[in-house]
Amino acid sequence: MSLATEMKSLASAAKAAARTMAGLSTNIKNELLCNMADALVAAAPELQEANKKDLAAGRERGLAPAMLDRLALDDKRIAAMADGLREVATLPDPVGEMSAQWRRPNGLQVGRMRIPLGVIGIVYESRPNVTADAAGLCLKSGNAVILRGGSEAIHSNLAIGAILKKELQRLDIPEAALQVVETTERAAILELLKLEEEIDLIIPRGGEGLIRFVVENSRIPVIKHYKGVCHVFVDASADEEMAERISLNAKVQRPGVCNAMETLLVHEDIAKSFVPRIAAAMQTKGVELRGCPECCALVSGMTAAKEEDWPEEYLDLRLAIKVVADLDAAVAHIDRFGSLHTETIVTSSYANSQRFMQLVNSSVVMVNASTRFSDGNQLGLGAEIGISTTKLHSFGPMGLEDLTTRKFVVFGEGQIRE
Amino acid sequence: MSLATEMKSLASAAKAAARTMAGLSTNIKNELLCNMADALVAAAPELQEANKKDLAAGRERGLAPAMLDRLALDDKRIAAMADGLREVATLPDPVGEMSAQWRRPNGLQVGRMRIPLGVIGIVYESRPNVTADAAGLCLKSGNAVILRGGSEAIHSNLAIGAILKKELQRLDIPEAALQVVETTERAAILELLKLEEEIDLIIPRGGEGLIRFVVENSRIPVIKHYKGVCHVFVDASADEEMAERISLNAKVQRPGVCNAMETLLVHEDIAKSFVPRIAAAMQTKGVELRGCPECCALVSGMTAAKEEDWPEEYLDLRLAIKVVADLDAAVAHIDRFGSLHTETIVTSSYANSQRFMQLVNSSVVMVNASTRFSDGNQLGLGAEIGISTTKLHSFGPMGLEDLTTRKFVVFGEGQIRE
Repeated sequence: MSLATEMKSLASAAKAAARTMAGLSTNIKNELLCNMADALVAAAPELQEANKKDLAAGRERGLAPAMLDRLALDDKRIAAMADGLREVATLPDPVGEMSAQWRRPNGLQVGRMRIPLGVIGIVYESRPNVTADAAGLCLKSGNAVILRGGSEAIHSNLAIGAILKKELQRLDIPEAALQVVETTERAAILELLKLEEEIDLIIPRGGEGLIRFVVENSRIPVIKHYKGVCHVFVDASADEEMAERISLNAKVQRPGVCNAMETLLVHEDIAKSFVPRIAAAMQTKGVELRGCPECCALVSGMTAAKEEDWPEEYLDLRLAIKVVADLDAAVAHIDRFGSLHTETIVTSSYANSQRFMQLVNSSVVMVNASTRFSDGNQLGLGAEIGISTTKLHSFGPMGLEDLTTRKFVVFGEGQIRE
Repeated sequence: MSLATEMKSLASAAKAAARTMAGLSTNIKNELLCNMADALVAAAPELQEANKKDLAAGRERGLAPAMLDRLALDDKRIAAMADGLREVATLPDPVGEMSAQWRRPNGLQVGRMRIPLGVIGIVYESRPNVTADAAGLCLKSGNAVILRGGSEAIHSNLAIGAILKKELQRLDIPEAALQVVETTERAAILELLKLEEEIDLIIPRGGEGLIRFVVENSRIPVIKHYKGVCHVFVDASADEEMAERISLNAKVQRPGVCNAMETLLVHEDIAKSFVPRIAAAMQTKGVELRGCPECCALVSGMTAAKEEDWPEEYLDLRLAIKVVADLDAAVAHIDRFGSLHTETIVTSSYANSQRFMQLVNSSVVMVNASTRFSDGNQLGLGAEIGISTTKLHSFGPMGLEDLTTRKFVVFGEGQIRE
């Protein structure tokens, strides 16, 4: 069977299974997820056997220790996958929700009902826990899911998939509702991305390279974010202690993730006191600073920022810092160099908080809070399938609801159009 | 200036103007739309002068009389364009709406605020009124708009655009918020479709050929529908008089549009009495029937349907008709041949109405009402920018809200992540 035929038949089976998934009750879906959680824990030895193969192959290919660590499935991580599934089981089911209903002058009752998207394809790299996490969210929202992980985790992903599929079978749900692509050829992704008749949405998770590859080759709608160049703007009226606390947290609490701050903008009226203060605090935490000329004049020994620093996603203990004339200049900087991910203003001015909220149209805009809260769990969505920095369908962290759409429902008594 | 440079500079100007548009108050936007309406009526002679050039060119190119009629801008049509703008001015402004707000355990107040998409590109054919209609909806929802109509209406479209732009100028709104592409080269569309950094959404309106061309060449998200193969299913328990009324209305009230019925499905328990009845009624209205073998056995002289008839969008006084074993068979037929547009069940059974609603995941699902109500105005959206039969972002008729997205807003008091 050619790769194209193989992917087509896999996707067609998913589409057929999606019809069953859409009709499942919330109770059955929750039971399924809890059973899956128990099964993962019970199968820990089996999972770790498979995982060893991936780790051995990774060592052979010379993967960095950090990468090997991300790949490893110890008991704690298996327990975390199981807990994740149980947590999704406790979340409200978006399917069937009637989000609005109204009556037309002719008596027609019109409403909008939430339904699953259908078939969701997840293309991801590295961490095998994504296999269970993404499956849980897609299934709970009534979708079928096709999982295509990276070759470095193929044995682990297939083992997780096999355990989860057994639980579908036990509840008489078509197994094709959850499929892990077996081949590690990259061409398989290309074939999947052509199947617009069968697959409703593609979510790539991984590095910018993978995401661009998916976007450029997909005929199916893609929800993605390329990078997070998040800003904190310290307004003239900011409480300096609060500004320091938020800036430090946004930069150093976990620098390698997309909602960490990459550039700090400081109002010129507060720069003389705040820039030296935050520079000292950052340096204590081992953060390397790249400053604009004004900053360099205020702090001796600061590296001068280059033009390339402003749009850069460091994902590291490095921070670009710039003095701006006012709120509008901060907004203009964000507009030019930002990634529509997350921006925060630290201010005690009501007017400026309102103005920043109004003018900044990133997916998450904050007042007096750390950018690190830009996350589905932290914002209260319960769980996160990804984050979107393009505006269509979803914008910002995505939870269960983002894996659904709404159909119009119309109840009549024989009305016709005149 | 090359075409690529020209389109890029036009789109960049639109992006800059979108920033101003996003901040305009509802009052100013409404004033703008009403001024535009008055200006169109006042400029009727000028518009008709331009329209004459298109009509003359059309006649020269041998356009069919129906096409020439669609192109013509008489006083009535100009008044209708103006009324359309005034009506959009009366609709609620979706921008700024806080659709949900909740408090997190740490005190963070999280909400989702509706914001404009940014820059919307409309690629359309023929009718020049789309220029004013689409501009009104895009501007009211706080977006900038790039309009690219067909070459056959270029003089009319440019004249309408010029009049509308003057009204932007009079209210000190950047003119680039509304731009009509001047060149009629098709390559201009290709250049626009590449500009994913500047344009947020493309809506193609026209024939299937145009839509497929846009989808295949766009790097920007596209919202579209290819065709409407709408079904009416007459259940065993249907009131036959109601079923006849709805079927006739769905087929003949305006057969050339996407929400007209193309296939009638009849439950076998009611077929013996209903198929001859509806066949006679349809034939009286001049509808040509293509039936399954069971139908042909019930009505003498009915043409036998071929396999190609079931997925066909006739857009004409022609109807495919099929007897099905039960509701599930009807759903399976819709699933296989439908276009996710609009389907109706005629029934007096509560259980079957619920089951049909549950199993059919088209964008509009109806009970006891004509498919012809599947339209933004008829369903109460106020005005319609198009209809989507793909599930991402919008599904079904699209109003002002579909031209917006939601950002997360977070109000804190200095919270950091532990």
